[in-house]
Parts: sequence; C-alpha cells; structure tokens
Amino acid sequence: MEYVLSEKVKTLKPSAIREIFKYAADPSVVSLSAGNPSPEAFPVKEIAEISNEILTKNPVAALQYSVTEGYAPLRETVRNFMKNTYNIGRENDELIITSGAQQVMDLFTKSTCNEGDTVICEAPSFIGSLNSFRSYNTRLCGIPLEKDGMNIEALEKALKTEKNIRFIYIIPNFQNPSGVTTSLEKRKKIYKLAKKYNVMIFEDNPYGELRISGENVPSIKSFDEDGIVAYVGSFSKILSPGMRVGFVVAPKQIVSKMIVCKQGQDVHTNIWAQMVAHKFMTEYDFNGHLANLRKIYKKKAEFCMDLLDKYLVPNKITYDKIEGGLFIWCRLPENVDMVDFCKQAVQRKVCVVPGNAFLTDEKEQSQCFRINFSTPTDEQLEKGIRILGELAKEIL
Amino acid sequence: MEYVLSEKVKTLKPSAIREIFKYAADPSVVSLSAGNPSPEAFPVKEIAEISNEILTKNPVAALQYSVTEGYAPLRETVRNFMKNTYNIGRENDELIITSGAQQVMDLFTKSTCNEGDTVICEAPSFIGSLNSFRSYNTRLCGIPLEKDGMNIEALEKALKTEKNIRFIYIIPNFQNPSGVTTSLEKRKKIYKLAKKYNVMIFEDNPYGELRISGENVPSIKSFDEDGIVAYVGSFSKILSPGMRVGFVVAPKQIVSKMIVCKQGQDVHTNIWAQMVAHKFMTEYDFNGHLANLRKIYKKKAEFCMDLLDKYLVPNKITYDKIEGGLFIWCRLPENVDMVDFCKQAVQRKVCVVPGNAFLTDEKEQSQCFRINFSTPTDEQLEKGIRILGELAKEIL
Repeated sequence: MEYVLSEKVKTLKPSAIREIFKYAADPSVVSLSAGNPSPEAFPVKEIAEISNEILTKNPVAALQYSVTEGYAPLRETVRNFMKNTYNIGRENDELIITSGAQQVMDLFTKSTCNEGDTVICEAPSFIGSLNSFRSYNTRLCGIPLEKDGMNIEALEKALKTEKNIRFIYIIPNFQNPSGVTTSLEKRKKIYKLAKKYNVMIFEDNPYGELRISGENVPSIKSFDEDGIVAYVGSFSKILSPGMRVGFVVAPKQIVSKMIVCKQGQDVHTNIWAQMVAHKFMTEYDFNGHLANLRKIYKKKAEFCMDLLDKYLVPNKITYDKIEGGLFIWCRLPENVDMVDFCKQAVQRKVCVVPGNAFLTDEKEQSQCFRINFSTPTDEQLEKGIRILGELAKEIL
Repeated sequence: MEYVLSEKVKTLKPSAIREIFKYAADPSVVSLSAGNPSPEAFPVKEIAEISNEILTKNPVAALQYSVTEGYAPLRETVRNFMKNTYNIGRENDELIITSGAQQVMDLFTKSTCNEGDTVICEAPSFIGSLNSFRSYNTRLCGIPLEKDGMNIEALEKALKTEKNIRFIYIIPNFQNPSGVTTSLEKRKKIYKLAKKYNVMIFEDNPYGELRISGENVPSIKSFDEDGIVAYVGSFSKILSPGMRVGFVVAPKQIVSKMIVCKQGQDVHTNIWAQMVAHKFMTEYDFNGHLANLRKIYKKKAEFCMDLLDKYLVPNKITYDKIEGGLFIWCRLPENVDMVDFCKQAVQRKVCVVPGNAFLTDEKEQSQCFRINFSTPTDEQLEKGIRILGELAKEIL
C-alpha cells in the first residue's frame, strides 16, 4: 500500500539533535549535547515519600480518569504562586495544566494557526518548539538574536511585511540555545510592537527559576494589561521532566480552545504527577528547594565557564557569560566550517550541538555550537572541554 | 484584542458529555453517564508496591527525560504480548507507547489527514475520537451500526462516493457507546473493502480484554498481511486511566511521522507510568489480573442487565445484551423525544448520555441513550435504573 501522508507531516523530520544523540549514546563519548536537568537537582526522597503517601492513602484519585483542565488544587496553587511571585495572570486569563510545556507549543499553535500562517521566533531558538510549529505547516520567520534579545528593527520590519503573523515566540530568560536574557527595555519594546501590530506574544519560560546571578527581569506577561500574551511554564527543570507537567496562562478565549484540543489529545495529564507536584509545592519547602537548585546550577555553570576560560584559546572559540539556564553558546571564527568542527569533535568523542540545528532553516549557516553543563559530571565536563580546546588549537 | 482562531478549532466545542458531567457532579444525582473503569478493578496494592520500589531503587530513570517512542522494556513487553496472544504486528509494523490511546487518535489523524479529508466511522461512535478527528477539520462520514457491525452496503457506497477518504475508524469489540461487537465475517469484509479502495483501517480496541461471555473474535489487525491497519490499545481499562498509557501498532511509514508529531506534542509519555506498567506486566500475574477484571465486570454487567430486565417496561425501553465492555445502549420507541426523556431523567436525578452525542452530527436524531455500569455502585445502579423505569412507565 502506498501510504498517504498529510501535507503537515510530509517534510517533518526528527530533530537534528536526535541524530546527534545517537553518537551521545556511545558510552565512550562525552555528551555536552543534552538538555537534561542535573539528576542531583531532583528531590528524589521527597517525591518518593509523597508518591507513597498518595498511593497508600488516596490511590483511586491518582489512578482514575481526571479533568482535562488539570488537577484543581494544583491549578489553584500554581495560579497563586505565579500571581503572587511574578504578577502573572489577570482577570481574563485562565491557567491549565498540560503534559509538559511542550504540549502548550502544540495546543497554542493548533488553536491559533492555519497552514501557511507565520510564526515569528528568535534565531536561534528551541528546536522542540520550532518543530511543533512546523508540524502545523506554519512558516517560521527568525529574528536575529542579540546579546540583549531580538533585534528590534528586524522584528518591526517582519511585523510590517510578513503576512498572517499569528504570534511572536520568545524565550526571554537564559534562552535555549543562546543563553541570552532579553533586557527589560527590549521586553517592553516587543510588547509595544506586538500590541501595535495586533499579534500575540508566546512567552516560554522553562528556565526562569534557574537564575544564578544578576537581578530577575519581569516577564512580559507581568505587564500584559491588554491580554496579548500567552505564558508557558514547566515543572521539568524545577521538579522532574519525566513527570511531564507544565502549564499555560493565557486569555480565556484561546485557552477554551486549547482545552478542547487537549481533550482530544490526551484527555488529561497523568494525575499522579499532578498530585505529586501539588503536594511538593504545598507541603514541602518549595522556595527552599528552588534556592537549592540555583546553588547546584550556579556551581555547575561557574565550573563550566572556568573550564572554557582555561582550555579555549582566546579569539578562537568565544562565548558569552550566562546568568542562568542550562546552556552556553560558543562561537567559532568566521572562516571556520562549524559543522566540520562539530564532526571532528565527535570523532574525538565529544558531542556538542551544531548551531544551525536551532535556525528556522537548518541549511542556513551558523558559526556557533551549544554546550550543556547540567547533564555531564564534572569529570566529563572537564574532559569534553579540554578536548574541544585541543581540537581548536590544532585546526583553527 | 480580537483573538484569531484557526479554522480547525473555530467550531470545536467541548463534548456534550462534558456538559452532562456538570449535572453528574451534583452528589444527589446518580450518574450512569461516565465511562470510568470500576475503581475496584485497579490493582492498587501492586501499583503502590511497584512505584515505591522504582522511586526508591531507580528514581532518576523514573524522573529524567526519556525517549519519544516509549520506555524500551515496555515496548518490547507489549510487542511480545500482542504478537503472542493476538498475532498482532508484522515485520513492517512498529509499536510505540503513547499518552493514552487518545493520543493515537490525534497523532494518526495529524499524520494522515489534511483539512477537508474524509474519515469514515461507525454511527454512533466514541465522542473522544470523533472530536479528535474534528480538531483537524476532517469531514466525518458515519456508517449505520447494526447488531454485528457496520452496514456493509452503506460502507461500500461511502467508499465509492466519498472523496479523499483517509481511514475507516472502528471499535470492533463492545463498542462505545453501542456495546456492539463486529462479527468475524464483517471484520473480513471491512478489511477486503479497505484494501480494494486503498483506505486504511484504524482499529481501536480499549475494551478487548473485558469480554464477559462468548468467544474472542480475532482483531482485524491479526489478519493484516497488507499493512493497511493501525491498531490502538490502552492500559486505561486494564491498569489505570489516570496513568495515561496507551500504544499503537502500525506500519513504520506512518509511525515514523507519528513519532515526530509526538515529540512536538509531549516529548514522551510520563516515564514513571511506563515503568509501572512494565513491571506490572512482567513481575506480577498479568493474566491472572485480566481474569480477575473479567470477573468483576461480568458481575457488574449481569447485575445491570438484571436490573434493566426488572425495571424497564418491555417494548418501552429495549436494549441488546452485551458480551463485554462498559456500556449498555438503550432504545426508546420511535415516537418518543429522546432528548426530552434524558432531560426529565436528570430532573429526577439520574444522568444518562443522549445518543445523538455520539453521532457525526449531533443535530441528527437518535432514539437511544447510553448507560454505564462500571462507575456507579450497585446501590446507585439499582436506584438509577428504577427511576428510569418509573419515568418510562409514566410518560411513554
């Protein structure tokens, strides 16, 4: 039989990162290519304790069907936390629990985009989101990312000239892959432009709690008096990614459609995980846990940056210091073939992600590659960066 | 701001059943409208035991990111079980784990249908699937369901005349809502027709393990030598629906696209739940558990049918005996307004689902309503059916 595929999926491919993971699976390879939270950041003992209590005292609630919008006590708790801590959520907003933040990428795109519509995003940006947008056959329009966020002129030009723009996708804190944090000034400019051109902002903030230095910058959603921002949060980096729990705060008119789509997509999010997240937030020292996470990641990030300073030849591989998140973005000189460099690194048993994987068109050129420091052990990190430095010395 | 919604979701509405659930939430109302497995069917003690073991001995694996295709040991176990028990799965087939069977509805439709394409389904059929198909703006074409399955003449006529048909959706065992089991003869005819007209079959079998009488009928997928059937299974009725674990067995060409879509939809299914399902299947008496389930449901179903025989006035409300599943389909005389009957039942504090909710167009007429017997207690079941009988006596 010749299988008929929809136009949406015909050209869809697994992300380039997945191909790289195949090398990374080789135990002799040092993988700096993942994006996993550090296992030491999981509150393992507490989760086991909570889970055991739920499954002993209230098993049927944790095993039975539940409601699509999410476990009511968790919704309430997250709603209050976001409102009280970050001033996120207004009268016309609704918060629902999703199967990881990734599900919001799908539901929001499905609810707002027809095939051929345009999505504006940072260039580079998170592959998982780009692929979700692609899976609805949208057109991606990348705006060059500077040290303090998107190039505002390029953004306004795109808003003026592109057709059927549905939203601007932005990861404002410690962006994946670039590590860039968008300045407050630019956040305000982006908000103003979105309002002017009647386009929504899709604000994705998975790493917001992982700030290791500098001051918190208010989220765009926190000054959204016009109801033009959909905000996405996640428990993946602060509790556990395997549980697949995320949430969205957005205007009711959109969320009501996302709920119907979610009902047809997975009925509801795993209810055990929602109950665990709720108990962890309410019966344990949640803020203390977040402070501890920041301590873990600060140590890891600073160790990584020290290694980069130690092993990388200045002016051969450069990088920008980060204030949080899980990634560091390294840049090769203009005349170097970045993909070839990454391939040679793999041959020497170090795996990084080539920067073009994060562009709206993978065929575009990039001089950068991404390093992750949260997954490898300190020993692996040192070995990997030492080898990258040796390689750079030899061939650059 | 005026929110722009995609054409796909503009007309999407929460299922009629959800509206009914609002009444059902009133504790004074006897709900016969749910579709929840019986809580006594959950292996609560075993799940708590397994979960505790995983979170104590192997917590990081249960909490970290995992692969999109599903937990490898669970895939292997389910693949072998389906092959050895039901002869499901051929060389060109692939099995992946999904976030409940519901996710397969979404992924399969997304991978195979463009907007405006046609999906053939039984009339009546499962609302959750219909809504998933609708969410991709497909056209639904309902084929009248008879006591032994779809009307074959109507099916062939549709295959001949409808345009861009992508698949035939069928729940062959103890169908939701009708309780109908498609005969082997009709399964073969449907397969032959699908092959002749080059259309895939989407076989959904959530209740297959819940047979309480009669002989097992081979699934369509078991004689799929041509690679034209996608088979969907679920752990919701045999382990726990709150865990959201299902699976699909289908030709690789389609599954490879479903994997990419799933990656953009939720990255992977909650890994704790997958590990629990795997340990339950391999380290406990899985077949003994299934036998026990059948005992529980047999008792419930027979109790319900006895009540229907006792309280319903013959020739006023009729129903067909079932051989398994969770639902019984009741029929009112031709001259009765079914929706009005259901409304009056709600006023008397009994909630059933009006049959038109299960049609491809809810505005079509139906003389039927659906009763569920797995969720209510025996007392609730008796009270509910007694009231329905009294109502029928008074107004019919």
